[in-house]
Amino acid sequence: MTSRLDLEYDGTAFAGWARQPGQRTVQEEVEKALCIVLREEAVPLTVAGRTDAGVHAWGQVCSYEHEALDPMRLNSLLPDDVAILDSNPAPAGFDARRDAISRTYCYRVLNRRARSVGLHGRALWYHRRIDRGALQACAQALAGTHDFTAFTPTETYHTRFERDVLSAQWRIDGDLLEFWITADSFMRHMNRVLVGTMLDVAAGNRTVAEFVALLAGRPRPEAAATAPAHGLALASVGYPER
Amino acid sequence: MTSRLDLEYDGTAFAGWARQPGQRTVQEEVEKALCIVLREEAVPLTVAGRTDAGVHAWGQVCSYEHEALDPMRLNSLLPDDVAILDSNPAPAGFDARRDAISRTYCYRVLNRRARSVGLHGRALWYHRRIDRGALQACAQALAGTHDFTAFTPTETYHTRFERDVLSAQWRIDGDLLEFWITADSFMRHMNRVLVGTMLDVAAGNRTVAEFVALLAGRPRPEAAATAPAHGLALASVGYPER
Repeated sequence: MTSRLDLEYDGTAFAGWARQPGQRTVQEEVEKALCIVLREEAVPLTVAGRTDAGVHAWGQVCSYEHEALDPMRLNSLLPDDVAILDSNPAPAGFDARRDAISRTYCYRVLNRRARSVGLHGRALWYHRRIDRGALQACAQALAGTHDFTAFTPTETYHTRFERDVLSAQWRIDGDLLEFWITADSFMRHMNRVLVGTMLDVAAGNRTVAEFVALLAGRPRPEAAATAPAHGLALASVGYPER
Repeated sequence: MTSRLDLEYDGTAFAGWARQPGQRTVQEEVEKALCIVLREEAVPLTVAGRTDAGVHAWGQVCSYEHEALDPMRLNSLLPDDVAILDSNPAPAGFDARRDAISRTYCYRVLNRRARSVGLHGRALWYHRRIDRGALQACAQALAGTHDFTAFTPTETYHTRFERDVLSAQWRIDGDLLEFWITADSFMRHMNRVLVGTMLDVAAGNRTVAEFVALLAGRPRPEAAATAPAHGLALASVGYPER
């Protein structure tokens, strides 16, 4: 029996999704709750999008080989910073990672002089004046297939650096700037280096053309600093219609 | 010199706005920051809407008799759960409490089976099925002048129980139900007892007509339980146009 879990978490107090000895991880918390309810020694989870330390998820998906459980029962065993949104039987052999055809991330930037209480830890507070049109121009260059070598650490486990970006845009609502991007998959830190470099353009330190030139497989040092993890959230995961 | 501060706070870790010996209060945190910057022994604040323990504020207003300061400087001295949004010189004698002509509060209810991470501590999670039309019908009865004796504790410091409700409505967006109410002023717990009693109607435990009958000065025990503080926020304060 294969099951699918949809879940939400606040990444602040987690060392990321993936289990690591001696660290608090989302995977460990959820597997622990599944083991209790299912009375199993281990219930390994396969996840659609491994998130780094501090990164949030609004619509993470994972799969496991066992029966589906009542989400409220699981939630009662989980800490406040993880919640199961939905739990359902999945087609035999469903694999949340392999079957996903796209991932959508959102990076939030609060661009105003005063910091925020409500968005503390959920948006990057960036108080300098920036050129919002330049942000949009950068995002417009992202759709399509590009070599994102400049946007992932030089020391890498990735072997293929091209990614298909299905859509990318900044949605601007007053002081809140949200970068939404959907791609087949992402490399480590890719969204955060993209945002860091777009903000560098918007702050006037480099041109849109220089940003666009990076998309042809330039080396990592040519891009700007990695934006902090706490602005980023895995918003949703796409699967083929059945 | 009179100044006005606009501020935001998360009420979770505060024993409310008003100073209380041995308790962490918003008033004490903000006055402490003002004293440091102004090199004064005391800078007493007058607040538009005293909030109870656990209640949030998105647009609180207060006034004090001294020069206006850079909000970023004050914010650097304040903890993460309070932020100064704006700081400006005010007309001589401006009094944030006495001059306010209305207060707007928002009470958020998340009505779904799964609890939320993002709204944890910022919305009441109410997972039972409710009649949303009944909520709206209750809210529609609120506009105008009523005697809200049923909606404040029996042991009270209030001496006048009539309030002018300028507007009241539920704004519904999917699973998130927001009760917005604007009145000249509010009594202690008034919004939370209103919400608790409206939810009791929506859950089928009493009728809309029974709710409406309470607005004629019925005693407190006839209304339902006080809804938890963490769903409530002081959204904004109204002053006369100048």
